[in-house]
Amino acid sequence: MQDLTHTLNVALDERAYSIHVGCGVLSKPELLLPHIKQKKAVIVSNTTVAPLYLGMLRSTLENAGISVLPIVLPDGEAFKNWETLNLIFDALLGAHCERNTMLIALGGGVIGDMGGFAASCYQRGMPFIQVPTTLLSLVDSSVGGKTAINHPLGKNMIGAFYQPKLVLADISTLDTLPDRELKAGLAEVIKYGLIRDGEFFVWLESNIEKLMARDKDALAFAVHRSCANKAEVVVADERETGERALLNLGHTFGHAIETGLGYGEWLHGEAVAAGTLIAAELSRLLGWLIAEDVSRIEKLFVRAGLPVAGPALGAGRYLELMRHDKKVLDGKLRLVLLEKIGRAVMSDVATESQIIAAIESRST
Amino acid sequence: MQDLTHTLNVALDERAYSIHVGCGVLSKPELLLPHIKQKKAVIVSNTTVAPLYLGMLRSTLENAGISVLPIVLPDGEAFKNWETLNLIFDALLGAHCERNTMLIALGGGVIGDMGGFAASCYQRGMPFIQVPTTLLSLVDSSVGGKTAINHPLGKNMIGAFYQPKLVLADISTLDTLPDRELKAGLAEVIKYGLIRDGEFFVWLESNIEKLMARDKDALAFAVHRSCANKAEVVVADERETGERALLNLGHTFGHAIETGLGYGEWLHGEAVAAGTLIAAELSRLLGWLIAEDVSRIEKLFVRAGLPVAGPALGAGRYLELMRHDKKVLDGKLRLVLLEKIGRAVMSDVATESQIIAAIESRST
Repeated sequence: MQDLTHTLNVALDERAYSIHVGCGVLSKPELLLPHIKQKKAVIVSNTTVAPLYLGMLRSTLENAGISVLPIVLPDGEAFKNWETLNLIFDALLGAHCERNTMLIALGGGVIGDMGGFAASCYQRGMPFIQVPTTLLSLVDSSVGGKTAINHPLGKNMIGAFYQPKLVLADISTLDTLPDRELKAGLAEVIKYGLIRDGEFFVWLESNIEKLMARDKDALAFAVHRSCANKAEVVVADERETGERALLNLGHTFGHAIETGLGYGEWLHGEAVAAGTLIAAELSRLLGWLIAEDVSRIEKLFVRAGLPVAGPALGAGRYLELMRHDKKVLDGKLRLVLLEKIGRAVMSDVATESQIIAAIESRST
Repeated sequence: MQDLTHTLNVALDERAYSIHVGCGVLSKPELLLPHIKQKKAVIVSNTTVAPLYLGMLRSTLENAGISVLPIVLPDGEAFKNWETLNLIFDALLGAHCERNTMLIALGGGVIGDMGGFAASCYQRGMPFIQVPTTLLSLVDSSVGGKTAINHPLGKNMIGAFYQPKLVLADISTLDTLPDRELKAGLAEVIKYGLIRDGEFFVWLESNIEKLMARDKDALAFAVHRSCANKAEVVVADERETGERALLNLGHTFGHAIETGLGYGEWLHGEAVAAGTLIAAELSRLLGWLIAEDVSRIEKLFVRAGLPVAGPALGAGRYLELMRHDKKVLDGKLRLVLLEKIGRAVMSDVATESQIIAAIESRST
């Protein structure tokens, strides 16, 4: 492919920032350095990503005379908690970091969520940069400013809306991503097609195998299109009072799966894939989505190597876990459902028995 | 006094809110109820304040058909930490509280800081109301949206800027405030006179004994004038990039005292009083403040029963602790100093030896 960098602008007024999508953007100092105001910066990463990319990023900074404090955390959703967050605070305070020191989050969604939340809280807010290194974080968690940690009683329950100063979306980092995580990321890519971009869904039906084979042009297109969709939604509704909630297609069921099995058993994208099929089935039961479209959705997820049914937790347990989710309003379950491929709606019209029927038909 | 409620507006655009100052505002449902959108609300308080005022507030809500979840925390700065904050999250999640459930913080600065920070983080932000019950929190921490917890390496290091929906400043709650805490609150009242309201400083020189005797009219005037000063500053500079930092007169030295002695030995206002005298002495050494004005400041603090010198930690220890403070920028100590009574400036011109001299002349 050509070495082209596409830049998206997330137009959030005084919190506006750019997303640079391309191959090798991580080693382009001209993108990074204008944002670093001090002679010191912090890189938060994990034990999996640090050996692969920390050295490159560190050199870029050190060659410009910026000293680097690396904070390398254990890897995995199981560590997305207060104890690990506090390791970041300990290191920041131990190194006398200040409120205008830059924190760079280098890794997947967990590192982005924790690095971003740590930045939002440290001295009530220090600037941060997202460098996502998984497909999931490239197309989802790095855009939009949602940061959080988990609580034993629920996922992402403690967090902040906090925007980065910059996102470097380097497609090259996907070279080292395990197959299972690549597939999980595709669940969120497909989501954009389902909720608001029917044309993109059709493109995915023609190109899913190219993405699975890590074709750089196809990946760059899909990442850019996904980020553009997400940026549009976030600009319209930064704090999720309306349209932004549609990005949670499959997530209420998906969170129940992740919490019910214990964090880390299923990847987030896998749980979202199964949750999306439950939501599609419920949409069919309500008479909105035709059976043929449920089948198109199922086929695309199957081709992407993703689960199309949830684990057999029992419908009652699903409901119990879903009631802990943030999408509950005045006690009513509000779910993202599909009117057609390319159009999602938020609705609380589904009855408990319809929800149970959808779960039972889509859990094994 | 007449039963008058004075209302101040903190004009922060979409985050604007009102402060109602008066006697008995706590039991006026018409002020509180328009902000409670659910049939459930949470009151965060502590073991000292809850027996005094929780019942009254609870009745006001329950009489309007709103069920109340009380969360009663241990009392004191020593508990302003993650472990106590997590007790709030446990209770909120255990009771299935939602992102639009109202949290009411009923207590002094510690409860306001922790309740506000918990509200800012819970599901990335739930609404909250401040009901300050100490003079310090009435005139300082309840206005301006600074929330935080302490870290073993520094005070207020982990937090958020997060505005309440409403502040109920009930002068009647000062009836039960211990003398020592009343005096400590006066340190922050005097601060407004020193940094930006010379006329108010002169009023305080004439009325300090009335305040000490808990004269309701005098207290209501002083609280209102203090909140009005703070609100003006906060509106001009919500995130403390400029003028707002002047509110920290005496605080960098004061935080060093609190951390050096261990949280809770000295009250915050006592540490600020001593810190203010160190700052005044440093201002004199720089040739800005005349000796006679340092003496006026000292006399007013003495009449208010406040310390006018810090503990003998040693100047080196003071400096070490101050370098952990949030007011450090690129390694230089930035301090709030006085040009005259009624005008403060932020400055980094003081040399280390001048700072040491000021500390040594004002610590025992």
